Amino acid sequence: MFNVRVLNHETIESILDMQQVIEGVEKVYTLKAESRAEVFPMVFHEFERGVADMDIKSGHLKDADIFGLKLVSWYGDNPKQQLPALIGTTLVFDSATGKPIGLLSADYITGMRTGAAAAIGAKVLARKNSKTLLMVGTGHISIFAIAATLMTMDHIKTVKVYDPMDKMCAERLVGHAKEKLEQAFLAKLEQNTSMYESIKRKFDVSFEVVEDLESATGVSDIILTATPSRKPMIMAAWVKPGTHFSCIGSDMSGKQEIDEKIFGTARIFVDDVEQAIHVGETEMAINTGTITKADIIAEIGCVMTGDVKGRQSDTDITVFDTTGIALQDLMTAKLALDIAEEKNMGTIVDL
Amino acid sequence: MFNVRVLNHETIESILDMQQVIEGVEKVYTLKAESRAEVFPMVFHEFERGVADMDIKSGHLKDADIFGLKLVSWYGDNPKQQLPALIGTTLVFDSATGKPIGLLSADYITGMRTGAAAAIGAKVLARKNSKTLLMVGTGHISIFAIAATLMTMDHIKTVKVYDPMDKMCAERLVGHAKEKLEQAFLAKLEQNTSMYESIKRKFDVSFEVVEDLESATGVSDIILTATPSRKPMIMAAWVKPGTHFSCIGSDMSGKQEIDEKIFGTARIFVDDVEQAIHVGETEMAINTGTITKADIIAEIGCVMTGDVKGRQSDTDITVFDTTGIALQDLMTAKLALDIAEEKNMGTIVDL
Repeated sequence: MFNVRVLNHETIESILDMQQVIEGVEKVYTLKAESRAEVFPMVFHEFERGVADMDIKSGHLKDADIFGLKLVSWYGDNPKQQLPALIGTTLVFDSATGKPIGLLSADYITGMRTGAAAAIGAKVLARKNSKTLLMVGTGHISIFAIAATLMTMDHIKTVKVYDPMDKMCAERLVGHAKEKLEQAFLAKLEQNTSMYESIKRKFDVSFEVVEDLESATGVSDIILTATPSRKPMIMAAWVKPGTHFSCIGSDMSGKQEIDEKIFGTARIFVDDVEQAIHVGETEMAINTGTITKADIIAEIGCVMTGDVKGRQSDTDITVFDTTGIALQDLMTAKLALDIAEEKNMGTIVDL
Repeated sequence: MFNVRVLNHETIESILDMQQVIEGVEKVYTLKAESRAEVFPMVFHEFERGVADMDIKSGHLKDADIFGLKLVSWYGDNPKQQLPALIGTTLVFDSATGKPIGLLSADYITGMRTGAAAAIGAKVLARKNSKTLLMVGTGHISIFAIAATLMTMDHIKTVKVYDPMDKMCAERLVGHAKEKLEQAFLAKLEQNTSMYESIKRKFDVSFEVVEDLESATGVSDIILTATPSRKPMIMAAWVKPGTHFSCIGSDMSGKQEIDEKIFGTARIFVDDVEQAIHVGETEMAINTGTITKADIIAEIGCVMTGDVKGRQSDTDITVFDTTGIALQDLMTAKLALDIAEEKNMGTIVDL
């Protein structure tokens, strides 16, 4: 009775362009700031602590005429049987009629929208002339975050890469970074356009493996953190004035990547206040009494709409705590569905 | 990467047999009583009060190795554009790995599992020799509830049908009831088997339109209510000793079908205590102070496991308040997926 378009990982990977995803996530943040988007309560269930869990995040994007959900399951032992530990599925509905319109694999979208979020944090809050980017963490999300930030910032010359567990992971990422950026993000664009040339130029940076996180922190303008860490890796004393942090890794109670003391002096922005204080990087800063909820300056969308000032001086330390909201997934899923419809891709099923 | 089976309304309708659905829902109730099944918190969102809303019900059935969700959207104006007001979609996951395994249209399953629930209430709580069934309400659910109850009870001779809004609806249902029962429920069974003959015999009852609800109530042994009513239709004084009620209609705060005074003397059973007191028929009985939560004797599964006594005498009035839980949908969806796999039906998509 209803036509539902099904898009798998490969199809989504072949059609989603990071520049469009960044624009979509920017729109999500401004819609949220203008109360034109709603985040529904999250459902979280642990099947067995430390072994398997699942969550359902859902919401409504009025201007995009969609609502829907992303269900992510985490099964720690899956890799032993050649299955991914994280499996995400997105279901999109038409908010004019309530009928289902799309079923999508969520993992590539998650990478894209999370990378975009980190980059938007930098675009909105970092110093415009930022030259050195430090990527902490070398997992699935890192290349998305690096790509999006390079596309968004105009003056990055050096990308430093640190892995808290295994230096070899950083070496591997650095060794393949340029090739990956070109294959995954540049190759999708039409050649010889000004956009293509501009992004090609922006990807022409040097990559370096970080051995000493303290000294790398001290020379970095923008720091992106995307690890599953549960204790701070970057200490407040190491951070130079003017640094911007986009903290991606903390998305569950107890996770922490940077010293909570950084929050004591920084201007703090979040994607969603309630999520940030319960499951984000902000949680520990509040739990330790370093800050209170009132010290969060605003959700980042309020900076983008001009209602709140982001960075006030070149010496401000800024933090964007991005926990990830379903609206990012839904907007990116809608983008993929629209492109797929135009290109007649994916599988249409009759539901 | 994952094979997901998609089953639409027509496919599900062609393969689901009520007898198997009743067994599945019975299993759900006993699993829940044994804490081998979990209901996750419901997400409810009103897009616009009285115009459109949606809810997400989810849960985990350990023994069936599945978890998942049903999203139901209600858009009151949909029928004006030839769309159903209620649209349901079910997503089923393998609970051993977290991978998605099925996407199903939910509406036929909802009819089947709701009818089964009403019948199980009668099977467990009504007098075995019940002869007269009163169906209050003539909507989508009624024929499922009648079919399941006839299949479950051995001595029904008369089915009385009442519509609170329009007698013509009752006349229409009575006029087509036998034909509908045979086409929708009997035709699926293998002919000349003892099961086929037994159900054919059970369907051979007389149907009557009810004009006077008071006198119909007074001669009925089992009363099923499935309306969107917000005020009591059946008054306590009309009810004869020994009557059993399966109340299906109340699934949202403020709904009520039977006089709350009935709860004052009845033995009360529910499918889920928390849902019953918040959105079920039980809500009003508690809100008016007629009973307290402690007066609910048990969830019905506890009667089925033998832990709690259901009916104690032939003069007890019993009530089963069934609000509907996601586990019923998931178990029935799994049944449909298993049959479809065996018969190679539905569409397999690569997600």
